[in-house]
Amino acid sequence: MNYRLTIQYDGTDFHGWQTQTERQRTVQGELERVFGMLEGAAVHVCGSGRTDAGAHAEGQVANVKLAKNFAPEKLLGAINGNLARDVRVLQVEKADDNFHARFCAKGKTYVYRVVNAPVLSPFLARYAHHETRALDIRRMNETARLFLGTHDWTAFSAASSEAETRVRTITEFTVEASRDERANASIIEFRLKGNGFLRYMVRSIVGTMLEVGRGEKDSATIRKAIAGGDRNLAGMTSPACGLTLLKVHY
Amino acid sequence: MNYRLTIQYDGTDFHGWQTQTERQRTVQGELERVFGMLEGAAVHVCGSGRTDAGAHAEGQVANVKLAKNFAPEKLLGAINGNLARDVRVLQVEKADDNFHARFCAKGKTYVYRVVNAPVLSPFLARYAHHETRALDIRRMNETARLFLGTHDWTAFSAASSEAETRVRTITEFTVEASRDERANASIIEFRLKGNGFLRYMVRSIVGTMLEVGRGEKDSATIRKAIAGGDRNLAGMTSPACGLTLLKVHY
Repeated sequence: MNYRLTIQYDGTDFHGWQTQTERQRTVQGELERVFGMLEGAAVHVCGSGRTDAGAHAEGQVANVKLAKNFAPEKLLGAINGNLARDVRVLQVEKADDNFHARFCAKGKTYVYRVVNAPVLSPFLARYAHHETRALDIRRMNETARLFLGTHDWTAFSAASSEAETRVRTITEFTVEASRDERANASIIEFRLKGNGFLRYMVRSIVGTMLEVGRGEKDSATIRKAIAGGDRNLAGMTSPACGLTLLKVHY
Repeated sequence: MNYRLTIQYDGTDFHGWQTQTERQRTVQGELERVFGMLEGAAVHVCGSGRTDAGAHAEGQVANVKLAKNFAPEKLLGAINGNLARDVRVLQVEKADDNFHARFCAKGKTYVYRVVNAPVLSPFLARYAHHETRALDIRRMNETARLFLGTHDWTAFSAASSEAETRVRTITEFTVEASRDERANASIIEFRLKGNGFLRYMVRSIVGTMLEVGRGEKDSATIRKAIAGGDRNLAGMTSPACGLTLLKVHY
């Protein structure tokens, strides 16, 4: 039976989604440990894609094939009862045999959160990047439009990216500020939707946008970076803690 | 110079506010370490009161007397730059010499957060208690009124409380549910304001209220517990993780 899983995790204490070496704690590794225990055999949990070490997920999707037939709600309870509290399966659904969390994904939405305030509240420190300097929201929103469409994103991705093609389509990119009274801070959310994202792509785009927001980069430079693929024109890669995989689209 | 501090902390990784032994990490201990470093001598940071191990603060207040004269904003930056990110001084103000964070406090407001949902989101796990069973909000709000007023709170406090008198006045007690879409959960906030709270008092009242919400305790029992001081009539002490000191009133 093929099961579709919706998963949340606070990525702070994980070395990302994907299992690499035995010693590093990963979300996939934790899930495979617990599903393997229930199945009584090694199992493979297939995610929609990797997330970086320290990045979070509010709606990661994965699938797992099990020989045993479990009622979804029983499986949900058994899995969560054996996971640490920083990762939770929110939903288990029976899926078609041909449902594959990665190959079937049509796109993803990420949110990147920035706290714009003199002091970073401890209640946001795990989930947001801290920027003390003033940021021009209107200027960032105007620039966000330049990122829409289909481009080669070489300038905004890891040099070591394994992807065969670096062409991706971004369909939505918004920058919104809201007030958090508890933290006495402005929280800025960068929200990107696309058919796929290269490694470090969202963090590199956001790092570049922060330079735009601080008035350090102009739109001509951004246009050139998107068109020409020159990494030197892009900004810094912003820290993983601000990044959250919001939703996987099928 | 006497400085008044407004402090936030995620209490998860602290053994409470107050320094007890050298080896345990406490909020007071961390602050005294950093202020002592700036002062070049041992200093005492005086809080408005203790908070339990694992409990949080959005608005703890403390005062500290320093021989050196610092500009408040410089002091703020220097302190926060030397603290771990789970504790932050939000504000530093110069205060009258006779301002004493504990003796001058007129009251406090606490909030206790409960996630009422089948699964506890990892983004709330550090800051809320998890209750999977149905809770009757209206019934809890009706019962909350019984707690208002001046009473001896022996039935709702730690047996070992050091306080000379256990008489305290609760002036506000509300129970409100709101929807958290991200966590796919109902979050219930118990908010209590009073002129002071005994050790475990808020957690004991909330634990009792949860039994009321589940229909396990009736209002007659609550009335008797408040009037008679019999701990056996009160409910369980709910876990510290749900508790947050919201504000200290002066």
